[in-house]
Amino acid sequence: MSALRRKLYRIIFEADTPAGKGFDVALLVLIILSVTIVSLESVVALRREYLELFLRLEWSFTIIFTIEYFLRIYSTPRPIKYIFSFFGLVDLLAILPTYLSLFILGSQYLLVVRVLRLLRIARIFKLTRFINEGQVLTRALRASATKIAVFLGTVLLLVVIIGSLMYLIEGQESGYTSIPKSIYWTIVTLTTVGYGDIAPQTALGQFIASIVMIMGYGIIAVPTGIVTVEMSRSERLGVSHSRVCPNCHTEGHLAEANFCYNCGYSFEPLA
Amino acid sequence: MSALRRKLYRIIFEADTPAGKGFDVALLVLIILSVTIVSLESVVALRREYLELFLRLEWSFTIIFTIEYFLRIYSTPRPIKYIFSFFGLVDLLAILPTYLSLFILGSQYLLVVRVLRLLRIARIFKLTRFINEGQVLTRALRASATKIAVFLGTVLLLVVIIGSLMYLIEGQESGYTSIPKSIYWTIVTLTTVGYGDIAPQTALGQFIASIVMIMGYGIIAVPTGIVTVEMSRSERLGVSHSRVCPNCHTEGHLAEANFCYNCGYSFEPLA
Amino acid sequence: MSALRRKLYRIIFEADTPAGKGFDVALLVLIILSVTIVSLESVVALRREYLELFLRLEWSFTIIFTIEYFLRIYSTPRPIKYIFSFFGLVDLLAILPTYLSLFILGSQYLLVVRVLRLLRIARIFKLTRFINEGQVLTRALRASATKIAVFLGTVLLLVVIIGSLMYLIEGQESGYTSIPKSIYWTIVTLTTVGYGDIAPQTALGQFIASIVMIMGYGIIAVPTGIVTVEMSRSERLGVSHSRVCPNCHTEGHLAEANFCYNCGYSFEPLA
Amino acid sequence: MSALRRKLYRIIFEADTPAGKGFDVALLVLIILSVTIVSLESVVALRREYLELFLRLEWSFTIIFTIEYFLRIYSTPRPIKYIFSFFGLVDLLAILPTYLSLFILGSQYLLVVRVLRLLRIARIFKLTRFINEGQVLTRALRASATKIAVFLGTVLLLVVIIGSLMYLIEGQESGYTSIPKSIYWTIVTLTTVGYGDIAPQTALGQFIASIVMIMGYGIIAVPTGIVTVEMSRSERLGVSHSRVCPNCHTEGHLAEANFCYNCGYSFEPLA
Repeated sequence: MSALRRKLYRIIFEADTPAGKGFDVALLVLIILSVTIVSLESVVALRREYLELFLRLEWSFTIIFTIEYFLRIYSTPRPIKYIFSFFGLVDLLAILPTYLSLFILGSQYLLVVRVLRLLRIARIFKLTRFINEGQVLTRALRASATKIAVFLGTVLLLVVIIGSLMYLIEGQESGYTSIPKSIYWTIVTLTTVGYGDIAPQTALGQFIASIVMIMGYGIIAVPTGIVTVEMSRSERLGVSHSRVCPNCHTEGHLAEANFCYNCGYSFEPLA
Repeated sequence: MSALRRKLYRIIFEADTPAGKGFDVALLVLIILSVTIVSLESVVALRREYLELFLRLEWSFTIIFTIEYFLRIYSTPRPIKYIFSFFGLVDLLAILPTYLSLFILGSQYLLVVRVLRLLRIARIFKLTRFINEGQVLTRALRASATKIAVFLGTVLLLVVIIGSLMYLIEGQESGYTSIPKSIYWTIVTLTTVGYGDIAPQTALGQFIASIVMIMGYGIIAVPTGIVTVEMSRSERLGVSHSRVCPNCHTEGHLAEANFCYNCGYSFEPLA
Repeated sequence: MSALRRKLYRIIFEADTPAGKGFDVALLVLIILSVTIVSLESVVALRREYLELFLRLEWSFTIIFTIEYFLRIYSTPRPIKYIFSFFGLVDLLAILPTYLSLFILGSQYLLVVRVLRLLRIARIFKLTRFINEGQVLTRALRASATKIAVFLGTVLLLVVIIGSLMYLIEGQESGYTSIPKSIYWTIVTLTTVGYGDIAPQTALGQFIASIVMIMGYGIIAVPTGIVTVEMSRSERLGVSHSRVCPNCHTEGHLAEANFCYNCGYSFEPLA
Repeated sequence: MSALRRKLYRIIFEADTPAGKGFDVALLVLIILSVTIVSLESVVALRREYLELFLRLEWSFTIIFTIEYFLRIYSTPRPIKYIFSFFGLVDLLAILPTYLSLFILGSQYLLVVRVLRLLRIARIFKLTRFINEGQVLTRALRASATKIAVFLGTVLLLVVIIGSLMYLIEGQESGYTSIPKSIYWTIVTLTTVGYGDIAPQTALGQFIASIVMIMGYGIIAVPTGIVTVEMSRSERLGVSHSRVCPNCHTEGHLAEANFCYNCGYSFEPLA
């Protein structure tokens, strides 16, 4: 690997040097600008007025991202692996629609996929203390995944049963035109969103709707409780992070521990 | 009891053998498919187009479920008890409507009761580590049942009083046509669902509505607090239950612990 | 005080004898029935149909409650104090409207005040283990009252400022016809109720509305956190309730306490 | 500094004397009255009727606040620093619009900025035990700021991606006229506000909307969990801060404790 390629790699793929950090911040700004332009282009009034400006900016961003894409392929030691990685595909999809719009009319709308590049922001965050907080959050959510799955399963079952019931009770006139639509309404109500595009009209329907609302209002306590408890534990583990057994290097020892729970090594008492 | 019946019983009613587990998963898939078909059939556009396909699928599912039903009766050591059990009645109700639709027009709508069979999913979950999580959740909810009852009672009282008040203040023009409807509106508002089909028009009504909203916004903290505290305790009990040091009787050992953190005693590995 | 009056007092005012408990349950049923009748009477279709039945039931309930009212005055050792107590006034207000409706047309609507008598349910609850749960809840809420006041004050300040801002931005056309109405909209949005009777139309208004929504979504964590923490502490105190100093009878000792925090008495170590 | 100026300073800027406290309470009442008048003036019906009264009150408040403003400049030892401080600018902005309305028509609407003066309420709270509670809340929120930033960043990313997706799926007819508007709808749905001014019409759109709702319903558990855990820790720190046993250095003593629960040492009574 040449010195240039190694240097490029450190700047483009990593973010632990000032140049690498600067590159990432510049990329972040470009992505946000580019997504903003795509968003604004979708506003009819603006598109009519500034179409040419939008087109020019779109092509500028696309050319910059294309150069970046090929620099990435050039500098990475394993180009094939990069091209077929998640970010490699996103990087490709972020530039393709502009080129396609030369041949197929209206395909520039696919540029919205560029927003996925915003996920790269995560890498910049990795440099700062955000990583620890992110880990605590992720660990808490992963630990509570099973409980949340049980909870979600129960909710889905409820939603299907209540949705079917409301279809039979309310019928076509009130907007409950089919069971899937009734289920959609039940989700809208249970999650306390409440659009109001469909609302029960009969007394019985409103009674059942009331029960669904109170259930939805109470049920939210369950995921909150799950995540809070896990976060509290994850936090405690995160705090005792500094408590690493000097003999076997396991982590997560309780503050009051006198012995390593893994190898039985006797700890020095904490000052 | 013959060997065949015993073998069938283990496959159909239990789920601790590969065959039994496979049977349950197949049943799960069939129930979900069948419920999906009933749901789609309720969509007018689809019913007009694919009525024959729907009828054929409906009859196929019904015949499969009928065979399953009689196999259950045949294999269980206590058929009468099964027939009149909750799941026995659900299994019967899940096949009856299709047969009834031969005689009574429109009775196929009752097939939606088949969704109740989804409750069988719970049994498959019982096999996996979901059982522990489910138990922690259930224990937490049961322990907080009394507190939640006190909370719900207070909320209902509030809802009746505020609903009556809004009926007197807003009157017929704003959609508060009766006290039950006013109570319905109060529940819609207090649970922060907010359909908007009924909304206060007078200044006084909007003022009271604001208070109801802020109350509802704050009140949700109460069930959340209750469940979180109970879940935290249930969690602690769940964790510490299995791990007590046989030497010094301290609790709260991690599942992966090999040694007591207090006295350094070496644990037997968990089975 | 005669034996009859003392016996009546124990039945009517207390609930620790079988007769007293029965009286309270009967009263509870009557109040719920009476409130249900008043509610149903407000439904136009039902009033037209069953007016005579409603009137008869209304008079029956009123006569029963009147007898009960005078029995209460007769049996209580301090009649004046009862008459001017909160429940005394509620009991009087619960019977007056029916008598007034003989002279003033339409005054029977005031009967809705009868729902306040439902507060008596609380007394029946006092008999059961609900009292402990209620105390834990009340203690937790009272302890967090100051924090919740700070929180509510901040929210109200925000709501006034944002409401005024939205009035200037959106103006008359979008339904923000005055600052009070804009403040009402802000409360509707911040509490995630979202009726949709007023909704921002301009791009800037929708941008600010988005910020208000995300704020409201996040801010709810604050009262929840407050109540959970207080409830957790109240719970712990509730648990250590059994830990009473045998010397000075103070409560609330920590589980690990070796000495009474009030009188310094040395505790026996817990088994 | 003259004695008069020093005395004025203690009354106007501080709140630890009866006169200073009285001044702050009077100011609080005046600010609330003044903001109420500005709010009521924006109601068309009231403005038409009571325009003259409103104008008179407005001028009275403005003159009082002007006198207060100059007294503040006179009494403070560093007038320049006060004038350009946050509250100094707010105090100026709170009186300017009335004077401007003499020259520029309609500028009295800018008076709504006066609501910012309500922030002074915070200072009165500083005197009471609210300060401790406020500090516990602030510390908890500051400690969880990084976690909440990670959470908000993830939510914003999701909102942009889902908003773009819904724009492509639903299109112009359902009200999703542009990507920014689609993003606005996603925020309205994810935060469970649910106005209903825009709602999905296609089956696919309603399916994605359902997922967004359930996500929003579950995601709220994350900030709640973060704040609860931080508040719990902040609370523990807040409690133990003031009470450490001077003999054995154990923490967590109750505010009413007279003796150390660990070593029985007799505490000095708190001032």
